Amino acid sequence: MHNLMICTNDPHRYQQQIEALELPGMELTDDPRLATILLADPPAVANRLEDFPRLQWLQSTYAGIDTLTAPGLRRDYLLTNVRGCFGQLISEYVLGNMLALTRHLRDYHQLQMQHRWSPKPYRSLAGLTMLILGTGSIGNQLATAARALGLRSVGVNRSGQSSNAGGFDDIAKIDMLDRWLPFADIVVSTLPATPKTDDLLNAERLGLCQGALLFNVGRGNALCEEGLLQALASGAIHHAFLDVFKQEPLPQEHPFWQHPQITVTPHIAAVSFPEDVVDIFADNYSLLANNKPLRYLIDFNQGY
Amino acid sequence: MHNLMICTNDPHRYQQQIEALELPGMELTDDPRLATILLADPPAVANRLEDFPRLQWLQSTYAGIDTLTAPGLRRDYLLTNVRGCFGQLISEYVLGNMLALTRHLRDYHQLQMQHRWSPKPYRSLAGLTMLILGTGSIGNQLATAARALGLRSVGVNRSGQSSNAGGFDDIAKIDMLDRWLPFADIVVSTLPATPKTDDLLNAERLGLCQGALLFNVGRGNALCEEGLLQALASGAIHHAFLDVFKQEPLPQEHPFWQHPQITVTPHIAAVSFPEDVVDIFADNYSLLANNKPLRYLIDFNQGY
Repeated sequence: MHNLMICTNDPHRYQQQIEALELPGMELTDDPRLATILLADPPAVANRLEDFPRLQWLQSTYAGIDTLTAPGLRRDYLLTNVRGCFGQLISEYVLGNMLALTRHLRDYHQLQMQHRWSPKPYRSLAGLTMLILGTGSIGNQLATAARALGLRSVGVNRSGQSSNAGGFDDIAKIDMLDRWLPFADIVVSTLPATPKTDDLLNAERLGLCQGALLFNVGRGNALCEEGLLQALASGAIHHAFLDVFKQEPLPQEHPFWQHPQITVTPHIAAVSFPEDVVDIFADNYSLLANNKPLRYLIDFNQGY
Repeated sequence: MHNLMICTNDPHRYQQQIEALELPGMELTDDPRLATILLADPPAVANRLEDFPRLQWLQSTYAGIDTLTAPGLRRDYLLTNVRGCFGQLISEYVLGNMLALTRHLRDYHQLQMQHRWSPKPYRSLAGLTMLILGTGSIGNQLATAARALGLRSVGVNRSGQSSNAGGFDDIAKIDMLDRWLPFADIVVSTLPATPKTDDLLNAERLGLCQGALLFNVGRGNALCEEGLLQALASGAIHHAFLDVFKQEPLPQEHPFWQHPQITVTPHIAAVSFPEDVVDIFADNYSLLANNKPLRYLIDFNQGY
């Protein structure tokens, strides 16, 4: 018998969907001392993991579980995250923002307000090179969508290989990142937050770019904020689209808000829709009940 | 021996590119009486076709050649247009504008100006149905790009069949348009201007939609402007993205400019880049010189 406790910012909606599934051998509980399973937004439980003495499995509603893999926190339970449903949303975010810029959508809106018919030159995305840091399901789906719009995509990861690389034209090892950056028209970080990704995109690396567009849709830790400001000033980066930051919400007085070459969005590139999360939860519950390995299991040491 | 006259809004750039090709048996001329071949923007020659007594072939720099197929104009020459290079640009325009709306890019820009971190709910494009009027290379490439973003595309044409339908999930006959409109989340017209497409999208048909997004990237004649205003007022159309109009430039006092649910752009969804046009011209010149059928030949009676 399992007792599930839901700790999300939309518990009622999750509860309804879970109850509708009538999962065998599982009851909902509000008592943390009884909970053997948690379905939780990581920030909602990271500072109270000790409240759940019987915890066996935590299904995160987020892809990003770095608040739970931080040093000093307990690791004596199975932690799974959600994957597979974010590639679509990240693709929409990256392609939508990129096209809004290259096709001058904001300028045309201003011109329309003035009743002005004034075509502006533009170039096509066809033939541009997109360097995607991270070759998981998000990077791969982005590469597939980008290919349909004529872009060439190069994935960057630790091994230089990928079992899931259908969308990429090429895969490069992270050691080769500095050689690839000068050829990238677009650089997209989909990297998780781990000690190895801290400030990976620093002033020196960003300075290797040649007027590239930069997207950070992974985690804020990967981007050196001061380094970005330098790269924008030098022209190495033409424009940055940032959905994640070292501190979220981005502080009121942060220079990014007013920078004309930075687009700030409030961590919405990909959000978890409860129906997708519940699908993954139900699959994993069935695996747990049958003593089989869970999907999307996190390795606490690697941090993903 | 052929004499080519260039009548485009960027003649110098075309001239340079043509001269670089060193096409055998062809010389450039500025004298309309000598010209056997024209490389021309249709509006630049439509009202002076009688000035070219020796004209054998006119290569249009545009896809849209309706100014040249209008009643009363001479038809005693070969007319070819350009195709194949617009599908990419139309796909960028449609997907970019659609995503800018669904992902609230303009709202986020406003919020950024105010230093406000304020996520807004949204839904994914995945699973939406796009009805594409016209199944030529533009419609087909748009369908392919839309599929990569999870959309389902249904092409509509006169036969209900297509030899070039790789991107479509389904092809419907134009007679069935009224039955399909209620199921369309997005309606895109890529239709050429012919008598048969005049006001095809009228108040009655648009009224069958259920909160759809409408794109006109074909020709302005296909959309009844008063009908659109009614459909926006009733909610049948949620937002219209219009790149082409009955009168271009759109007159200063036209109600579309200020309508909050209409996006007006100045006929830029797809422009002809000289390098693409010159490629097609060179191929066709070679075919002409060898007495072979030209590519992208227009049937004056059908108008495309």
